[in-house]
Amino acid sequence: MNVTINHRTRPYRTVTFDARRNEVLLIDQRLLPHQFKIAAQVDYRATAKAIQEMVVRGAGAIGATAAYGLAQAALAFRGRNLARFATHIEAAFDVLKNARPTAVDPVNAMNEVRSAMRSGQTVEEQQALALAAAEQFAHEDVRHCEEIGRHGAKLIKNNMRVLTHCNAGWLAFVDIGSATAPLYAAQKAGRAFHVDCDETRPRSQGATLTAWELAQQKIPHHIIADNAAGHLMQRGEIDLVIVGSDRTLGRTGEVANKIGTYTKAVLAHRHGIPFYVAIPLSTIDWNLHSGMDIPIEERDESEVLGAWGTSGKGKKSLYVRVANPTSRARNPGFDVTPAELITGLITPAGIFKPRELWKNRLCLGYKK
Amino acid sequence: MNVTINHRTRPYRTVTFDARRNEVLLIDQRLLPHQFKIAAQVDYRATAKAIQEMVVRGAGAIGATAAYGLAQAALAFRGRNLARFATHIEAAFDVLKNARPTAVDPVNAMNEVRSAMRSGQTVEEQQALALAAAEQFAHEDVRHCEEIGRHGAKLIKNNMRVLTHCNAGWLAFVDIGSATAPLYAAQKAGRAFHVDCDETRPRSQGATLTAWELAQQKIPHHIIADNAAGHLMQRGEIDLVIVGSDRTLGRTGEVANKIGTYTKAVLAHRHGIPFYVAIPLSTIDWNLHSGMDIPIEERDESEVLGAWGTSGKGKKSLYVRVANPTSRARNPGFDVTPAELITGLITPAGIFKPRELWKNRLCLGYKK
Repeated sequence: MNVTINHRTRPYRTVTFDARRNEVLLIDQRLLPHQFKIAAQVDYRATAKAIQEMVVRGAGAIGATAAYGLAQAALAFRGRNLARFATHIEAAFDVLKNARPTAVDPVNAMNEVRSAMRSGQTVEEQQALALAAAEQFAHEDVRHCEEIGRHGAKLIKNNMRVLTHCNAGWLAFVDIGSATAPLYAAQKAGRAFHVDCDETRPRSQGATLTAWELAQQKIPHHIIADNAAGHLMQRGEIDLVIVGSDRTLGRTGEVANKIGTYTKAVLAHRHGIPFYVAIPLSTIDWNLHSGMDIPIEERDESEVLGAWGTSGKGKKSLYVRVANPTSRARNPGFDVTPAELITGLITPAGIFKPRELWKNRLCLGYKK
Repeated sequence: MNVTINHRTRPYRTVTFDARRNEVLLIDQRLLPHQFKIAAQVDYRATAKAIQEMVVRGAGAIGATAAYGLAQAALAFRGRNLARFATHIEAAFDVLKNARPTAVDPVNAMNEVRSAMRSGQTVEEQQALALAAAEQFAHEDVRHCEEIGRHGAKLIKNNMRVLTHCNAGWLAFVDIGSATAPLYAAQKAGRAFHVDCDETRPRSQGATLTAWELAQQKIPHHIIADNAAGHLMQRGEIDLVIVGSDRTLGRTGEVANKIGTYTKAVLAHRHGIPFYVAIPLSTIDWNLHSGMDIPIEERDESEVLGAWGTSGKGKKSLYVRVANPTSRARNPGFDVTPAELITGLITPAGIFKPRELWKNRLCLGYKK
């Protein structure tokens, strides 16, 4: 439950766990903004499929979902054989990890769950520890977003026009969000500002999810085509860009995020507009030495060739083919923004220059 | 009729005139790529509406359509009073001009028709001259595209990967196209290459029209989200960009074109990728002194908030609302690319540096 921002109109979180039924409960984000539905995932394979099919998406949300998914796998195990239990957990780990190969959050989150389990002496103890660790991960996710909001709110002055890309809002986390956290905190502090949401093709998470969130939070905003941001910057109509991150390289400050993020960073750089990336600690990858080593998911071409929407009020969302029927598409899902284009990284521990992550690694959750 | 490229499979032009019925015939581009239909415009107001509603779009095509529309208005006039005839023509001129305020082609085209009419002594003579001038404009449009193809084909080497934005293909002209002319000419010369078509939201002319054209011409291509081009450039997967132009400033070399063009130019510049703009002479504006003075059309927000497509084979195209129902959009239709980002302008008279247009104005159709 969100008690920080708007608990009366929003008594739910993006990801929760029903321990009695051993189900992961997710807001089905594929149905938003036209329908609101909580989808119950009955086993870890269903949970992995939900991650893969983007029932749930966004760094923190898929991290918490994978953590709960691993706990769910643990709790579903019948028997007392610790070796078999370990094999079962490893299999579930791999299934959940492979649901979204570019993202680092599921792996980080599941590593925490797996580490916590190790101190258990029996299957039963390890099961209880897995659940506690997953719950702890979700709790930390919310707390980190609150801290990002506290630090990032300083960047937002009265009457600013802020550009966002994709959805790194509370729907992308357990609650509050990363890129949106500074907006919500600035609003709470009484500041008035305007947000332009990039539509964010091909899946249009900006037009659907971010716009839906901002409307719920009563923040003035416009949706714009991804093509329009450059023009608005050129005409002096954007003052600040804040985006999220799917993976941030702790050693280089490079950011992998939704396709199109790099383009916005290049444009902001040309126009001298501050470009900030909000990053929860769980998205930091301390291992990779180059952004070129981040695997870029090529997603299904149907996303580019068509769109999802409703043809009338209350009607179900349907897929329409937009593109020429005899043409095919390429669909890289992410891109990598180099450190030189990033003004600052808004973390729960404060705002850092991208190249300062490594030297501040001890306060940023680095574990050897 | 296209006798240059593919007359067996394509025995039609984008814009033609039926003098017997006094109708302007247009391929209804809003129905493509799912349906092919020629729409007859029965009077100049219908022709203006067709321009406004994008039944026809693209620099040369709307120029020819406006020229035919003015001839259509002339031919519809009953009576011998030259003063009344002139008033009628001026009214039609304004209606046709205001259908697309950012574009310069309709005005240039109609100026040619109006000038030609002046040598007529009677209403009847002026009517005949108007029709001849409109036909001449359409003929010149095709010839210019052929010349653009001849010059631009030199830029396309074997195995190149070429990026395009929006549709400046034969659908955007009477035939052949501007940005596509070099592709078709290079294909004719036996070169093998690959084209990536920007989807070009909000109206998706790349995914629908350019992809449809390229499929018809059997040119290997992929559709990509507008967000993906930066990533592909970063990974070294784009060798050349060719786009069209809605208005080119003869004095500065600035190019107004479909929203998103500026973004692609900024990206190409960062990556050292040649960025060419194909410009028919009719798109050159010799008057304006700054791109900031080009009026940028704010189009209807419904374009950004939804998409047009089909929900099944053979089904009619329908509009679906993609975006959050309670959010609004901004929709600038064009942007302005400065000369410094443009490698060259491919004109019917050869390839020029953007800042060289003015000194070469005499061979580029400049009239004082």
